[in-house]
Amino acid sequence: MSLTHGSENLKLYSTSLSQTRKESPRDATSINHELLIRGGFVQQESAGIYTLLPFGERVVNNIEGIIRNEMLQLGAEEISLPILQTKENWIRTGRWDTVDILFKLKSRWSGKEYGLAPTAEEGIVPVVRSRIRSYKDLPMAIFQIQKKFRDEKRAKSGVIRGREFGMKDMYSFHATTQDFQQFYETTRETYLRIFQQFGINAKVTEASGGEYTTQPTHEFHAISNAGEDLIVYCTNCTFAQNSEISQFQHGDSCPHCNSELKVDKSIEIGHIFDLGTKFTEAFDLTFAGPDGSNNPVFMGCYGIGTTRAMATVVELHNDDKGIIWPDAIAPYNVHLIGLNTDSENVQHTINFLTQELNARGVSVLYDDRKDATTGDKLASADLIGIPNRVLISTRTLQQKAIEFKRRDSKNSQIITIHTLLNSL
Amino acid sequence: MSLTHGSENLKLYSTSLSQTRKESPRDATSINHELLIRGGFVQQESAGIYTLLPFGERVVNNIEGIIRNEMLQLGAEEISLPILQTKENWIRTGRWDTVDILFKLKSRWSGKEYGLAPTAEEGIVPVVRSRIRSYKDLPMAIFQIQKKFRDEKRAKSGVIRGREFGMKDMYSFHATTQDFQQFYETTRETYLRIFQQFGINAKVTEASGGEYTTQPTHEFHAISNAGEDLIVYCTNCTFAQNSEISQFQHGDSCPHCNSELKVDKSIEIGHIFDLGTKFTEAFDLTFAGPDGSNNPVFMGCYGIGTTRAMATVVELHNDDKGIIWPDAIAPYNVHLIGLNTDSENVQHTINFLTQELNARGVSVLYDDRKDATTGDKLASADLIGIPNRVLISTRTLQQKAIEFKRRDSKNSQIITIHTLLNSL
Repeated sequence: MSLTHGSENLKLYSTSLSQTRKESPRDATSINHELLIRGGFVQQESAGIYTLLPFGERVVNNIEGIIRNEMLQLGAEEISLPILQTKENWIRTGRWDTVDILFKLKSRWSGKEYGLAPTAEEGIVPVVRSRIRSYKDLPMAIFQIQKKFRDEKRAKSGVIRGREFGMKDMYSFHATTQDFQQFYETTRETYLRIFQQFGINAKVTEASGGEYTTQPTHEFHAISNAGEDLIVYCTNCTFAQNSEISQFQHGDSCPHCNSELKVDKSIEIGHIFDLGTKFTEAFDLTFAGPDGSNNPVFMGCYGIGTTRAMATVVELHNDDKGIIWPDAIAPYNVHLIGLNTDSENVQHTINFLTQELNARGVSVLYDDRKDATTGDKLASADLIGIPNRVLISTRTLQQKAIEFKRRDSKNSQIITIHTLLNSL
Repeated sequence: MSLTHGSENLKLYSTSLSQTRKESPRDATSINHELLIRGGFVQQESAGIYTLLPFGERVVNNIEGIIRNEMLQLGAEEISLPILQTKENWIRTGRWDTVDILFKLKSRWSGKEYGLAPTAEEGIVPVVRSRIRSYKDLPMAIFQIQKKFRDEKRAKSGVIRGREFGMKDMYSFHATTQDFQQFYETTRETYLRIFQQFGINAKVTEASGGEYTTQPTHEFHAISNAGEDLIVYCTNCTFAQNSEISQFQHGDSCPHCNSELKVDKSIEIGHIFDLGTKFTEAFDLTFAGPDGSNNPVFMGCYGIGTTRAMATVVELHNDDKGIIWPDAIAPYNVHLIGLNTDSENVQHTINFLTQELNARGVSVLYDDRKDATTGDKLASADLIGIPNRVLISTRTLQQKAIEFKRRDSKNSQIITIHTLLNSL
């Protein structure tokens, strides 16, 4: 018995819990739902609740890594707030009885009631309150990357609207609205850069703040038929509004540049809020100004759905054969296929190549199946969608070479291992 | 306004949400509770529920990194199972009505009931069941690192027994008991190596399996007065039993080597279980053998409390001034203190040193406070417990040097920056 047949950077396909499926799931409601299940990324547990299988866990880990890095660059600090939020804090903000997606539960021993974090304003403000005394303690920005819970009436569109999902939530605290606005703009730019790394060209869209704020807020939208929103956007400039609040319709002229407006379905992948003093006043979070006066702190909140981001990327990057992952978030860098593996030469080359790639920190999924046809192996590679496919066979080795194919290209190339190692 | 005054590897103390406290919290019940709060690692939200503040988040991230690496070395794959576990699966194993620490909740829309994961046997077995067909698909080991929830009658001992806590749980699946036993032994050795990296000399202790199994199980214990368990152990050999199941008492002779047995309070920091076929039979998880016969899969389960590990390290590594973190899990590598920071020379040296340390990947917490006394800064450094303290002042620079002190040493040394950079 040996389980030690892998490492963080080399995985044998035959030993993975993640496996591809030829058939579509019967209840697939969207492309992301179908392809994430067929590629071995997620498995549905119940409506709106999914297990991240190993391939999916790796994609979400990459998404989280990109977000974490950008949040730290903003000067934000990472923490972990409780998922079990006390009823008292939700009573204090007046949201215990009004937020209808809040899962509630009670201890059988103490009778104490909790809400399961759908977001964490009620968690973070009391924590920051015990830290802030004067204007010298501001600004401050805090984030976490953790599961959130929403008792949705209907869970829809696969992983996009779940009852349990991954989310990065950041909260900012500033002494003045001017300081806040500057940070809000910087974060907006950071969000666009994050989504670009995921291969998503997001539109900054004016939207309503729901029960969070009466101020206008900004959503980040990816145009997609799998979306549940409709946005009105300009075909020329950056103007975009959620149709829920927009005065404009398809075909109207853009108020900024007079070009034509379009209306399309879209997925909300991020949302940033000017919360003003709503939550800070509820918890008496104030600071002493330079003149000794007592002032409320200005607060912002900034969310990105991490599992939803994965699903959105799948909606945007796929073909009829499967997913096409952008390099930055792919589960592995290289999908390696060996044919004629009984040949000593093939086996030797595979061993050499995986060692060399490993040494360079290039992660490899190696399809080592003995009982699968070449067609099965190629179909699995297309379903999983790793950006670089390398095929080694007696035929390629006759040319002292390997077959290299980018997932997003129609054509493969015969190149030497040397060329491959230099290009990855 | 600038929040961009830090990076992952350099943090200015004055801008951190984590701050030290001179006073003990009034309700402190244990050393870890007191020191983790005074050092700025955690903040209590309600009984048994804590926020990980930035310093605590970094320690737990380090703990998770060490565990993840060792699990991958074992050949295990990482996934993420739902926290909302369906009632149906718990009915199936007969545990819905018997596990009294299970938090239960219900959707207000669908009426569907869930248990909040206290562990994940009911989650993982149905997932693995859809993957395993024949003996060729075995063995398999799967792990996750995620929050768990337990409706404890009494939350005690600070972060040690919480209602919400971090845990790594791994599950193994084998075709034969022999294969399982071999993996179980390997994991036992891996656990001891993990705890050693945390600075914990753990004792492998025979224990009861509770509602999980009638087989003997093995707990990993750290002798500590903060513990809630009592273990009987040999002063000479590795014999150790939980007093709940032991026939032996303090002063008895060891059944293995005849040396004296002791009884001491201890903290359970890990637990590994031979689950046999209890859970796999409940979900019909079987495999076809080489002869075509249908056989039940043998299962094991392996847990480490990540937040509890942090608390245990604090119980074991402290003095009357604060925490003394082992290097591998310290929140930062270097605690930098600048005195006479109005001096251009001091400021220049601090800038140079932080850049050089950053370039080497050494993480630095820099106490940049202008309004704190030298005594305050030294006291904060001792409370936080970072292993290497570096102090720069006009006095040290007169000797073209800095003052270096290991947290676990009584004496400081005057050394050159060159020597410092070479030694870290």
